[in-house]
Amino acid sequence: MQNITTTQKQGPLSGVTVIDLTRVLAGPYCTMVLSDLGARVIKVENPNGGDDSRHIGPFVGSGQTTKSAYFMSLNRDKESIALDLKNDDDRKILFALLRNADVIIENFRPGVMEKLGLGWDVLKTRYPELIYAAVSGFGQSGPHRDRPAYDIVVQAMGGIMSVTGHKDQPPTRVGTSIGDITAGLFMSIAISTALYERTKTGTGTKIDVAMLDSQIAILENAVARYMALGENPQPLGTRHPSITPFSLFKAKDGYLVIAAGNNSLFQRLSEVLNAPELLEDPRFSTNALRTEHVETLTREIENLLANRSVSEWLDALSKAGVPSGPLNTVADILNDPHIEFRNMLITTEDPDIGQLKMAGNPIKFEGVPDLAKRPPAPDLDGDREKILAELGECVS
Amino acid sequence: MQNITTTQKQGPLSGVTVIDLTRVLAGPYCTMVLSDLGARVIKVENPNGGDDSRHIGPFVGSGQTTKSAYFMSLNRDKESIALDLKNDDDRKILFALLRNADVIIENFRPGVMEKLGLGWDVLKTRYPELIYAAVSGFGQSGPHRDRPAYDIVVQAMGGIMSVTGHKDQPPTRVGTSIGDITAGLFMSIAISTALYERTKTGTGTKIDVAMLDSQIAILENAVARYMALGENPQPLGTRHPSITPFSLFKAKDGYLVIAAGNNSLFQRLSEVLNAPELLEDPRFSTNALRTEHVETLTREIENLLANRSVSEWLDALSKAGVPSGPLNTVADILNDPHIEFRNMLITTEDPDIGQLKMAGNPIKFEGVPDLAKRPPAPDLDGDREKILAELGECVS
Repeated sequence: MQNITTTQKQGPLSGVTVIDLTRVLAGPYCTMVLSDLGARVIKVENPNGGDDSRHIGPFVGSGQTTKSAYFMSLNRDKESIALDLKNDDDRKILFALLRNADVIIENFRPGVMEKLGLGWDVLKTRYPELIYAAVSGFGQSGPHRDRPAYDIVVQAMGGIMSVTGHKDQPPTRVGTSIGDITAGLFMSIAISTALYERTKTGTGTKIDVAMLDSQIAILENAVARYMALGENPQPLGTRHPSITPFSLFKAKDGYLVIAAGNNSLFQRLSEVLNAPELLEDPRFSTNALRTEHVETLTREIENLLANRSVSEWLDALSKAGVPSGPLNTVADILNDPHIEFRNMLITTEDPDIGQLKMAGNPIKFEGVPDLAKRPPAPDLDGDREKILAELGECVS
Repeated sequence: MQNITTTQKQGPLSGVTVIDLTRVLAGPYCTMVLSDLGARVIKVENPNGGDDSRHIGPFVGSGQTTKSAYFMSLNRDKESIALDLKNDDDRKILFALLRNADVIIENFRPGVMEKLGLGWDVLKTRYPELIYAAVSGFGQSGPHRDRPAYDIVVQAMGGIMSVTGHKDQPPTRVGTSIGDITAGLFMSIAISTALYERTKTGTGTKIDVAMLDSQIAILENAVARYMALGENPQPLGTRHPSITPFSLFKAKDGYLVIAAGNNSLFQRLSEVLNAPELLEDPRFSTNALRTEHVETLTREIENLLANRSVSEWLDALSKAGVPSGPLNTVADILNDPHIEFRNMLITTEDPDIGQLKMAGNPIKFEGVPDLAKRPPAPDLDGDREKILAELGECVS
């Protein structure tokens, strides 16, 4: 389908146009990924304040021109038009947009699009090539379908919270909105594969991705443990359920990670620790036995680590080829030269706020420029004139 | 490219063939997603034990026929051939496989494929349509490029561990291997979009996805806080950094989640709690103020919650339309009828072990059967004869 923008973006999704009705996180995260890969994303926002994340902190700027850095990060390099989907004239504009679009994505609760006269049954008749992507908390079907969901709800319901943290301590959330983000990533996969399939079939499809389903899909080892052994997995701090030693350890001045998942690495670790007794101990002779005796082994390793600093141990482990690393704060890792080298912090220049750095695109394609600067997030309705001009006589 | 398998799978990636050299998690997770969407995945395993995850628990079966339920879950519906990539004859078989393949994926450390004579420079000349996907710990470039990485290493280095858990308590890992899984998801997006682009360009590409980069990409609000405010984000237990109340709360007999992220929901929550004083308190009159006074508000809410059970509160909150939910264990959620309704637990039938249930595919396409039964994971080299027969005279 032809993209009508004047300056076409680069990337594998160059030429693809996405009409984005979503708000806050799962949907906008998905369309951020698609935009980073070259798609043109047009946010259709409600005129009454727009995307809710415009009003969620942290805020930058001062006085009357503060903006949400959170919104700015998630919506870089998108366009915005404000439309009231309950208004007939505005719905006509949406229909005109869809004539030239490849994808529509929405994250209303199931049934809302139908009430607006924008359900898949209507749209597929008018736009047979359109890919319709619905991302929701619980999916378009099933007993929980009508429940409202946010990240914290699916983190708690989906089981990940029950296996994160320390036993006998209060539960903890994963410190990033993994409930939304995972659904956004699965939806990005779904849309990309639907675009691929459409090159063969010529027709669009409807996609249903739920945040709760996506949480089940990332439980991995925990599902296997429950299904194979009937064990209800518990939180294990920083250790792995079935690989040992594979965890965070305390040294003289802080923490470091050691991941010695097989016998050869365990031998090298013992050499670095100058502790041949670990190799001779029958309790530690296989990974299965080390996992059985994980508490004893952890105590012994931490006793040995206590006499030197994290950086001394990391040097020695690195020389011996034992997988290891520091426990970084967000500031630590964002200032690591590797992150700059990998272009994982990009810059946008907002006309009101100035420069803002944000996480870059982790998908690196040979031959596609990995832009270190990207256009900023749009103001609400900021691209109205340009978009309407492109539509021309389609809207009257 | 023509798929030579006799019974073609269904899904948007039907007809796509993936040659999979990866082991353990990020790579196999990616190819599991691709297989679930219809791709044919041929695992090329080292003859000396195969994929390491065959030897990682939990194990099922008894006596001589135990198998890893972990491996079985991640590798359902794939095929296996054992090849020694250092052996000339075996490399010839790999080359023959690549003639009919669309994608090759590997997760060796950077440089290993080149040493094997299988680098992108060699392969792109021989197979110009091939998509070459490299998933690694730190990427194909940059100062950390040669370091070995496992999930726990990038979780610690990438910052997510520093924002997960409770302040002044020992750090915790996210209870699932989010370091690997996120990279696997980004790679699935990358491969799908490369397949799409190839329908227009006719040529393949090389993709570089790193686990550490992927961790940066999911830090979301934490990056914004550091970049916008210069704050180094700390762990916050179960609460959200900038939305309040949006967290886990203690009731009479356990925990529940309440996510009342705007004024209207906060009002409804106050009504359910029968606490008009919350609405009159100037400290709680906006989301920003509620976030500033989060500790006081949490205490007040928990005082009110203490007199009734979790299920009583969830009923009342649900009726009032306040987003809320229980804190489920893995057993709780896997036994929730919604999960069965959504087909998020699928079954495989292993010839030696019998039935094993595992997490299903969270991407639901209109018109594509969402199979509740899938073929089992292969034994090491289990599809050799069939695969060699298909290659026919290509290998001699």
